[in-house]
Amino acid sequence: MIIVLKPEATKKEKKHIIDRIKELKLTPRVLHGTERDVIAVIGSESIISQLPLEVFPGVESAMPVLKPYKLVSRKVKPDSTVIDVNGIKIGGGKTFNIIAGPCSIEGLGMMRNIWKSIQQTGIGIMRGGAFKPRTSPYSFQGMGKKGLEIFKKIKKEFKISVITEVMDTKDVELVAKYSDILQIGARNIQNFSLLKEVGKCKKPVMLKRGMAMTIKEFLMAAEYVLSQGNFNVILCERGIRTFEPLTRFTLDISAVPIIKKETHLPVFIDPSHGGGRWDLVEPLSKAALAVEADGIIVEVHDNPENAVSDGEQSLRPYKFNEMVEKLRKTAEFMGKEIC
Amino acid sequence: MIIVLKPEATKKEKKHIIDRIKELKLTPRVLHGTERDVIAVIGSESIISQLPLEVFPGVESAMPVLKPYKLVSRKVKPDSTVIDVNGIKIGGGKTFNIIAGPCSIEGLGMMRNIWKSIQQTGIGIMRGGAFKPRTSPYSFQGMGKKGLEIFKKIKKEFKISVITEVMDTKDVELVAKYSDILQIGARNIQNFSLLKEVGKCKKPVMLKRGMAMTIKEFLMAAEYVLSQGNFNVILCERGIRTFEPLTRFTLDISAVPIIKKETHLPVFIDPSHGGGRWDLVEPLSKAALAVEADGIIVEVHDNPENAVSDGEQSLRPYKFNEMVEKLRKTAEFMGKEIC
Amino acid sequence: MIIVLKPEATKKEKKHIIDRIKELKLTPRVLHGTERDVIAVIGSESIISQLPLEVFPGVESAMPVLKPYKLVSRKVKPDSTVIDVNGIKIGGGKTFNIIAGPCSIEGLGMMRNIWKSIQQTGIGIMRGGAFKPRTSPYSFQGMGKKGLEIFKKIKKEFKISVITEVMDTKDVELVAKYSDILQIGARNIQNFSLLKEVGKCKKPVMLKRGMAMTIKEFLMAAEYVLSQGNFNVILCERGIRTFEPLTRFTLDISAVPIIKKETHLPVFIDPSHGGGRWDLVEPLSKAALAVEADGIIVEVHDNPENAVSDGEQSLRPYKFNEMVEKLRKTAEFMGKEIC
Amino acid sequence: MIIVLKPEATKKEKKHIIDRIKELKLTPRVLHGTERDVIAVIGSESIISQLPLEVFPGVESAMPVLKPYKLVSRKVKPDSTVIDVNGIKIGGGKTFNIIAGPCSIEGLGMMRNIWKSIQQTGIGIMRGGAFKPRTSPYSFQGMGKKGLEIFKKIKKEFKISVITEVMDTKDVELVAKYSDILQIGARNIQNFSLLKEVGKCKKPVMLKRGMAMTIKEFLMAAEYVLSQGNFNVILCERGIRTFEPLTRFTLDISAVPIIKKETHLPVFIDPSHGGGRWDLVEPLSKAALAVEADGIIVEVHDNPENAVSDGEQSLRPYKFNEMVEKLRKTAEFMGKEIC
Repeated sequence: MIIVLKPEATKKEKKHIIDRIKELKLTPRVLHGTERDVIAVIGSESIISQLPLEVFPGVESAMPVLKPYKLVSRKVKPDSTVIDVNGIKIGGGKTFNIIAGPCSIEGLGMMRNIWKSIQQTGIGIMRGGAFKPRTSPYSFQGMGKKGLEIFKKIKKEFKISVITEVMDTKDVELVAKYSDILQIGARNIQNFSLLKEVGKCKKPVMLKRGMAMTIKEFLMAAEYVLSQGNFNVILCERGIRTFEPLTRFTLDISAVPIIKKETHLPVFIDPSHGGGRWDLVEPLSKAALAVEADGIIVEVHDNPENAVSDGEQSLRPYKFNEMVEKLRKTAEFMGKEIC
Repeated sequence: MIIVLKPEATKKEKKHIIDRIKELKLTPRVLHGTERDVIAVIGSESIISQLPLEVFPGVESAMPVLKPYKLVSRKVKPDSTVIDVNGIKIGGGKTFNIIAGPCSIEGLGMMRNIWKSIQQTGIGIMRGGAFKPRTSPYSFQGMGKKGLEIFKKIKKEFKISVITEVMDTKDVELVAKYSDILQIGARNIQNFSLLKEVGKCKKPVMLKRGMAMTIKEFLMAAEYVLSQGNFNVILCERGIRTFEPLTRFTLDISAVPIIKKETHLPVFIDPSHGGGRWDLVEPLSKAALAVEADGIIVEVHDNPENAVSDGEQSLRPYKFNEMVEKLRKTAEFMGKEIC
Repeated sequence: MIIVLKPEATKKEKKHIIDRIKELKLTPRVLHGTERDVIAVIGSESIISQLPLEVFPGVESAMPVLKPYKLVSRKVKPDSTVIDVNGIKIGGGKTFNIIAGPCSIEGLGMMRNIWKSIQQTGIGIMRGGAFKPRTSPYSFQGMGKKGLEIFKKIKKEFKISVITEVMDTKDVELVAKYSDILQIGARNIQNFSLLKEVGKCKKPVMLKRGMAMTIKEFLMAAEYVLSQGNFNVILCERGIRTFEPLTRFTLDISAVPIIKKETHLPVFIDPSHGGGRWDLVEPLSKAALAVEADGIIVEVHDNPENAVSDGEQSLRPYKFNEMVEKLRKTAEFMGKEIC
Repeated sequence: MIIVLKPEATKKEKKHIIDRIKELKLTPRVLHGTERDVIAVIGSESIISQLPLEVFPGVESAMPVLKPYKLVSRKVKPDSTVIDVNGIKIGGGKTFNIIAGPCSIEGLGMMRNIWKSIQQTGIGIMRGGAFKPRTSPYSFQGMGKKGLEIFKKIKKEFKISVITEVMDTKDVELVAKYSDILQIGARNIQNFSLLKEVGKCKKPVMLKRGMAMTIKEFLMAAEYVLSQGNFNVILCERGIRTFEPLTRFTLDISAVPIIKKETHLPVFIDPSHGGGRWDLVEPLSKAALAVEADGIIVEVHDNPENAVSDGEQSLRPYKFNEMVEKLRKTAEFMGKEIC
């Protein structure tokens, strides 16, 4: 921690700061600059960073030297984490995973139709929401447990894995019984009770970045899950909120290389929410592959006109299949397998 | 709903859209413009807005005519809602409520000290967190139930009302037993399970605006609570996230007059989080009063240097007392009572 | 400057950095931390900050200790600057200046009408655009020199001062001949050629904050003007761009107390552009007064329905007059004169 | 234009609006809805959109049906524009142009060194700034005309084309004499005087998107240039300002497919400014190619440690050469030529 003092800081104020640092069993080092003094604190930054240093008389600003995350950091674990979901490898750079399915589970027939029409691509994980976070209380809120039962049948029938969202601490146990991966949505990404709860669970967790969340805060949300013992976390960039009205969100493509540099966890892109427009799904998916994301999660609906949610950003199956073929060619060219 | 067609939309595509509108028992009215056609839909907009119209072939864009919220709307209830908290009136324009206290409940002695040193202002509601949403899993997470017990003693000793945050659906019943007002924090404002749960409760609820939430979405979050039967909702603007680094958040002062025009619910400002700096609390509080906010919620700590959270933005009691006296003069000049 | 090294930085890399610092005749001080080393640079920060330190091998990050602005800083000149515009004092805390007039000068009759209908308020500076920055090349671009001639007649007839925008270095001399204050619009605020040009001029300059400009960058834009010898600069907060669609911009009310703390220059609010809605002008003006802004600049039009620009955010004269009377009462209560 | 009326709009108010529409020789069509009435205006939208409709009594909101740009629109000119710069084709989908060079021209030797060390890539356009827009008046402001003279020698020696920024209307003629492409920087993109001036010029123009500019406004800036007769415009996405601090700007990768759909003009990405970090240049360049951008403009410096500007985001020549070889492989796989 570097503490910058005000030019007018008194000796008494300096002494008070130094005393507090020493009380914490840390070492203060005072540097006399030409315009003002600086105190560098030697020792564990996690201790000193608990103090609201900018409140101390005589302090102008305090700047941390270290990053606040630990378990998620590539410095702690240099090798990329590879998560195994019933045989499918996520992370590690050899695979590009494509997860696909509708926004909401609307019925067994629809789920079966969708998978039948896209299974030719050879992918192995289906998405679909049973509990739906909707902006309006008057919109469809999801099929709940019935939706999970449908997913159970689909899993058995097609021998695939599934991912679905959990919104409430009360539902974690239930959802974990049915789903191979638990998804935490962007609106619950700082629901710390929920993060702790899925951290106690053994199932892999996909975290969606919040729409106003810095990358550092996103990594801290993952740190919550890891700190409870669950190391199987996938981070998913899905667009942040900006002033641009032509897209629902602004996909922060730079987040992928930055997060991959900082952490060992797999990183996905959600090209459906990222742009909020079906015509952007293909270019954004290609960009995801180009920047070495570990995978994408895509909304596919067999009848977008009748979708109960997110119809605007869902691909029709034939469009999805075409897109996967294009991605496969590039992925193979890059030495990666689509799965 | 106004549906704008593409210039190249075919007769068949138009017919398909018109047929779908008729199926919903709504009336389509086609307008032939000089450059493109438009279909206006007559009838309930909540029905048509469930359709993802922009996915229909031939459609360029779809623009809703009405606003999506109902129960919170001043059109439905023109009179301002006045909430009674143990005799203190919130809303209605005759009072300017000041709620004060520390970010976190840290102990009985500290809570007693703080209230003793500010009770001379005559205010009647104390804040303090027992369950704390913290960015880092390694930061202090709140005293939990013990904190609530402390609040119980403070309530009894000083005969005041209290407000505290609830973060988890599992805790709503517990927190409602102790707290006069339930607070939903900015990070849980789209935790729809939690919104529904507090909606089933009888206690007044304060909703903090999310840091990337539009005003429309904020009103929809309130609509969740009202739609469950709880009409005692206070909306609190607490700063949104922008590019400006000198403040923790950017207080959106315009939100107050806009929300008060749209809704009958009381509107507060949080000048502590709004700027994230103690030196901004007084000017932002004055601005809140100037734009006719119904109240403010302020962080006060008797020893900010040792605060376990939010020390940077907490006022010391003597500073707070000075500020209240200044606000009181202006409030009286405006014909309002501080309480 | 504080230079944080990577944990894996080699001795050779450290030596290279230290050598470069010494070459600049500055003093490096190495601090050995528990997790990584830090080099503090003693001496003029303006020299070291020219180096792209983060490019040096072994460097993780570099953090400046000082602020980059000088002449605008209250540390350099603690007393508030008071600008005299033909007898009207701007800045210094005793006055609250209200500048009013239409967005664009549309003709002599219209300008005369507007001033006649608001002169009863006793204010003394009129605004009006002759050169207009318009998003569309097909929108009205201003009356140009003819507009300035109209302003000349208005100045003479009513014995008032005027402010108008200058958009092009080629026009600075011309506009300075007619206008008492030169305005630089938000879209030209980083047109550094223009900033230098008005800096060479003797006339007071009002700078509008850019819509994506940090406060630090805003102060640096003012520094450009002062560095050329013109110290009569007024800073005007006029809203920044955020995700909120209900307002044209988000007025950053916190900018006023922050800028007043950092600099000695007067600070204004533009409540018309700040919200982009006429119904927000009054509350935002009251907020401006509450946070101790030095003045406001307001759009007033006698016939907003026919305004060639900004009709949505213009007040009608009778509304403006009512607002000034309310502001006057509060200003007098605060010991300030409206002029 | 669709005009939505307030539920309480009176007959007189409606008549007044209808009369004004008829005065403009447009046709009003009134639609009586279940909750409120709507007036659709048939006829040229550019006429009606000059009226500030939301100011009219009885009007709730007004929604344009058409887009405001014309000459840049792909509807007006469906074929992609191909710009020929001394034999190098920009736009049209068969080429991926890479423009490279330092942020600032610092001397003849340095420019020669840089080009010598990257000419093996076979690219043909060099960048370099002679007039530099710098946030601080105390930073290096560019070599000015001397820099242009250096570029003249480089052009002759290596038989290449060059691009450089013009910041002032006064310099357009001068810069156009030396440079093959004129660049308008992000900070001058709404300097409409400058846009008009380069519009009167025959040289191709590259426009950098402003950091708080919507895509619609960006296209309107291009419309300014085209409306003056210069159709050789390249649009360049270079990052927008958001709350994320780990990157200097947030590259809006979605802007590329959206702009290419709306307009016939070539679209570039600036991966150097987009992230502001040299380690992001390669992934962002790959993303640019993946989303079918027409090219990139990259900062390369032979000695970033000593760069007078933008050292942090400049690639060293050998890194640049490696990157071009990777991009070339992918480009060839996509059937595109790098030039």
